[in-house]
Amino acid sequence: MAIAVETAEISQNDGFATVEEFMASPGFPKFMIDNLWILIAAGLVFIMHLGFASVESGLTQAKNSVNVIYKNVFILCMGILTYAFVGFQIMYPGDFNGFFGFGGFGIGFDASDPVGMLTSGYGMDMTIWSDFIFQAMFAATAATIVSGCVTGRVKLISFMLFGTILVSLIYPITGSWQWGGGWLSELGFYDFAGSTLVHAVGGFAGLACVLILGARKGKFDSGRVNIIPGHSIPLATVGVFLLWFGWFGFNGGSVLSADPATVSYVFVTTALAACAGAIASMLTTQVVFRSLDAPMALNGILAGLVGITAGADVISPLAAVAVGAIAGVLVVLAITFFDRMKVDDPVGAISVHGICGVWGTLAVGLFVPQYSFFTQLIGTLSVITFTFILSYALFSLIKFAIGVRVTDGVEAAGLDISEHGNSAYPYFAGIETEAAATADKS
Amino acid sequence: MAIAVETAEISQNDGFATVEEFMASPGFPKFMIDNLWILIAAGLVFIMHLGFASVESGLTQAKNSVNVIYKNVFILCMGILTYAFVGFQIMYPGDFNGFFGFGGFGIGFDASDPVGMLTSGYGMDMTIWSDFIFQAMFAATAATIVSGCVTGRVKLISFMLFGTILVSLIYPITGSWQWGGGWLSELGFYDFAGSTLVHAVGGFAGLACVLILGARKGKFDSGRVNIIPGHSIPLATVGVFLLWFGWFGFNGGSVLSADPATVSYVFVTTALAACAGAIASMLTTQVVFRSLDAPMALNGILAGLVGITAGADVISPLAAVAVGAIAGVLVVLAITFFDRMKVDDPVGAISVHGICGVWGTLAVGLFVPQYSFFTQLIGTLSVITFTFILSYALFSLIKFAIGVRVTDGVEAAGLDISEHGNSAYPYFAGIETEAAATADKS
Amino acid sequence: MAIAVETAEISQNDGFATVEEFMASPGFPKFMIDNLWILIAAGLVFIMHLGFASVESGLTQAKNSVNVIYKNVFILCMGILTYAFVGFQIMYPGDFNGFFGFGGFGIGFDASDPVGMLTSGYGMDMTIWSDFIFQAMFAATAATIVSGCVTGRVKLISFMLFGTILVSLIYPITGSWQWGGGWLSELGFYDFAGSTLVHAVGGFAGLACVLILGARKGKFDSGRVNIIPGHSIPLATVGVFLLWFGWFGFNGGSVLSADPATVSYVFVTTALAACAGAIASMLTTQVVFRSLDAPMALNGILAGLVGITAGADVISPLAAVAVGAIAGVLVVLAITFFDRMKVDDPVGAISVHGICGVWGTLAVGLFVPQYSFFTQLIGTLSVITFTFILSYALFSLIKFAIGVRVTDGVEAAGLDISEHGNSAYPYFAGIETEAAATADKS
Repeated sequence: MAIAVETAEISQNDGFATVEEFMASPGFPKFMIDNLWILIAAGLVFIMHLGFASVESGLTQAKNSVNVIYKNVFILCMGILTYAFVGFQIMYPGDFNGFFGFGGFGIGFDASDPVGMLTSGYGMDMTIWSDFIFQAMFAATAATIVSGCVTGRVKLISFMLFGTILVSLIYPITGSWQWGGGWLSELGFYDFAGSTLVHAVGGFAGLACVLILGARKGKFDSGRVNIIPGHSIPLATVGVFLLWFGWFGFNGGSVLSADPATVSYVFVTTALAACAGAIASMLTTQVVFRSLDAPMALNGILAGLVGITAGADVISPLAAVAVGAIAGVLVVLAITFFDRMKVDDPVGAISVHGICGVWGTLAVGLFVPQYSFFTQLIGTLSVITFTFILSYALFSLIKFAIGVRVTDGVEAAGLDISEHGNSAYPYFAGIETEAAATADKS
Repeated sequence: MAIAVETAEISQNDGFATVEEFMASPGFPKFMIDNLWILIAAGLVFIMHLGFASVESGLTQAKNSVNVIYKNVFILCMGILTYAFVGFQIMYPGDFNGFFGFGGFGIGFDASDPVGMLTSGYGMDMTIWSDFIFQAMFAATAATIVSGCVTGRVKLISFMLFGTILVSLIYPITGSWQWGGGWLSELGFYDFAGSTLVHAVGGFAGLACVLILGARKGKFDSGRVNIIPGHSIPLATVGVFLLWFGWFGFNGGSVLSADPATVSYVFVTTALAACAGAIASMLTTQVVFRSLDAPMALNGILAGLVGITAGADVISPLAAVAVGAIAGVLVVLAITFFDRMKVDDPVGAISVHGICGVWGTLAVGLFVPQYSFFTQLIGTLSVITFTFILSYALFSLIKFAIGVRVTDGVEAAGLDISEHGNSAYPYFAGIETEAAATADKS
Repeated sequence: MAIAVETAEISQNDGFATVEEFMASPGFPKFMIDNLWILIAAGLVFIMHLGFASVESGLTQAKNSVNVIYKNVFILCMGILTYAFVGFQIMYPGDFNGFFGFGGFGIGFDASDPVGMLTSGYGMDMTIWSDFIFQAMFAATAATIVSGCVTGRVKLISFMLFGTILVSLIYPITGSWQWGGGWLSELGFYDFAGSTLVHAVGGFAGLACVLILGARKGKFDSGRVNIIPGHSIPLATVGVFLLWFGWFGFNGGSVLSADPATVSYVFVTTALAACAGAIASMLTTQVVFRSLDAPMALNGILAGLVGITAGADVISPLAAVAVGAIAGVLVVLAITFFDRMKVDDPVGAISVHGICGVWGTLAVGLFVPQYSFFTQLIGTLSVITFTFILSYALFSLIKFAIGVRVTDGVEAAGLDISEHGNSAYPYFAGIETEAAATADKS
């Protein structure tokens, strides 16, 4: 998705005086197809946000499931609005120093110039509107990942503040380092669709928040790791399948055209990695825990998808199977590791997006000769370190100013009732029972 | 979606003797892309019907949730069949008096003429099959909106009758006034994808039915507005996201081609209005009710989408934010207003589709200089008055003939058991408890 | 989907020395569109697997719903991996004896030859990657259908073994008879998108397994057919709508190009048959059972879709309504029939996919003059007999080796807890109650 870089290279649509002239040119059908695919891909990435809402809600307790949904709706909508206002032109600032730039408010284009709006001032096989909407759908992803990590005990307003700044400022800055033509792209770093720039950013921002926030009550009581299961595996399943579905647009659209060779290749590597991730995580849970845990199998799919994202267009199909399989093993081990470290990540998002995001980016350096492992390592470390430090500082500041954690009473009663006055399933007796039981214990 | 109007204008595909000749012409790739996009858009509008079923079912009591689904499945299937039989040729009758016309039974084309079936007798950048299926997916929408309004106390057979006539007769008549080239299009009225012609039609038909039907038992007891919460906020969330996803096809497909400039522009305005609607409704509920109610936030998304639908291709991105935001405020106030007026609309569909549909159509007159606010007002009032009066008369007739409301016993026990012999969730103790509790009270 | 046959016919993209030369040729935009549609269709077929998981899970007891999901995730992922490894080249072996062939391991193409990877060595309007991923998404379908039939009492490992062999060996063999250019295609058999080759294969493999496995405890106790309702009609509804949505890609993509005339025609026949199936099954249940059962209406949609699949591109719209309507009647009668025969098919998959698959294939012979009913009969009988016998033998072998059925205790407690250690909805009291109640009875 290196737009700034490609802008300089592609210019075959330039030089038309009128829209009519451009539309009559031989290259116009190709432009139409490329543009249409980017729009469809934007729609697919959009549906990933339903995937995130479903999987994160399904994997948390029923008494906190409305809260998860509310946070995700908020951050998606606020994310797209702030991306239109400032984020897009931070991420793609044009000529800049390689570390931080800002092209100005809005999406940076004169809408009254129809020719330029198409291509000639822009140089890509899509309109500026298509480019913006595709990128905007990506933007909220990082914050949505954090939403899963902090669920069950975060103050709503504190998350809203943190998420808005993450999506409108922190995410576009590291994005500009690579996709905006900044110092990482100069260095030869490669992250096709964002194993690091999207997923690891979300995972390590989430880790920072979890370290400040602490674990949910009862998670690590009496020296043991207590399992607090999610409330609906079918809902989580719907979420994971929709994420996979949307990932065909996330990776496939990152080709930034409908180029038949590359887009179809990316579909294949993406699917193979997801499959290998699932099978590997199934085997791993069987070997390690002697169980065939369903949520872990679902996380295996996501692990494979996150892993292949950095190199979906350059990694061979066989290597895609390997990358996905290793991600499927890694995610099980990482979730176990963070549990032992008493890092409470209710939905496993730090492992899925953080750890497997790093793995996928490094894998490009391992499996593709033209990329350097060392450069991949530098790029990944730079992005996650920057994100972790800024997120830690920001969330600490919010903690100091207004607090980040709900009271024990609110946590016990559930955030749905306390923060929203809603119950996810008001007619099902079990939920009241659950809330009461938890309250009794604490 | 002014097909009849455009038919006269576009004719570049005319004049081919054989399909082969047409397929060898330079314009054929563009025709392929345009046609493919309309088909994909038809698929997206189809998925909106799952969205409607999910959101309406989720926002009603568990004991009535199968009934909602059944009604929506019926009306979607009956709607497409009757649209093929009569509706398509009422909506697009060809030359007619501007108020009512009928081109004949079926979809009005000689399937044995392959050249004409493509374009030359038709004059658009799509086949007649694509045109039909895209329009057919729209047709059931209005009746599906009514399904939400009347839920919990309507007799199934009465709704089936009413819905079938609405979708096969009333909806296509007002549709023909504008999209079929009738008197409203002559007048200069503008409703791009149907804020009025689809959504307000559904909302005001629903209002007519609710006024005849009366409120659910217990809704306005002892002079208070009693909240009867929906049974599953996650299910409603799935529905709202799918509606938004499908709306990219609803609005994007209404361009009636894959024209890069317009389709991508429509994606942007549609998304911005949805986001602004959500944020505005969140703020409004916080200010008015001191709560962050999740279903209201979801309705804010829908309000923004309904609002932008009339002008998605002509309203500026900034104005789209304003249109969506105002819709997000309006929907909260309208739901409160109808509650005070003792109009019982369980899912808020009259406010979302009726009120915000009117708002969106008027907004075109406010924000786009070339359209007259007065004409927009006339057009909107004409369509909703006609729809309301005919719906009121028709539902009154059905009430007189066979009744429209279930008995108190059936209402208390729930329509799922009474009308279908089904329980949505037979293994969850809560539902029996709910039914029992409601029965005790009445 | 007769790839081998068309390979010989279409060769207009052959003969380019470099990719650049091909991309500069006049046929390239058409190639791009065709290829893009196949990729999008592959995505739509993918989402059918979420449809299957949702409908099968929703129509089974809550205590077995995780197990259904786990089986479907496994078979989808293992199916795609084995299809890449062996299945694709069994199904499309190139020149072969018409009964069985094997082109070699992998997907049979030199990825380092970019020109060939596009078309010239391949001869279709899509890349080999697009062809593979579209076919791979189909492959797991048959085994997923079996998953529904055997639910509630099958040993997980036994199903995994059976499903893997079905998807990697049995399905591609009968597929090669027709779509690989084998003896059935030579005979003049027609099965456009797989009423027989996909759906009846799944249905009759499922029948073989059910006969070996026996009924669930309590299903046919005391000489009566006891209804064991599914646990979530909303979840099943989500599944059925997603299946319909995906079917536009299943049938529409089977055109193997974005040919405007055929793809749009297929969308129309597919939708009309689904609608007619639903309305007919609603009427049938009302006449036969005096009830308006929702799950049966949902199965009516699927019945219509399965029925039209064999002839979606050649059957007239009016005949599509007839084919769908008859399928909608058939599915109700077949489910009743199998219940009386004490064949326990919890989700009705044998009736939906097996019986309606056969009906749809025969319907091509009845409604389309150029196809022989007798040939259709021979083809269908050959495929289902072969599949049934091999499946019966294989599942018997597995029964002999490791057993196929869980113990009575495991069945009573539910497979979710016993096989996975998961509960689908751990906070809802009803489920524990259900498990306890079932355990008490047995």
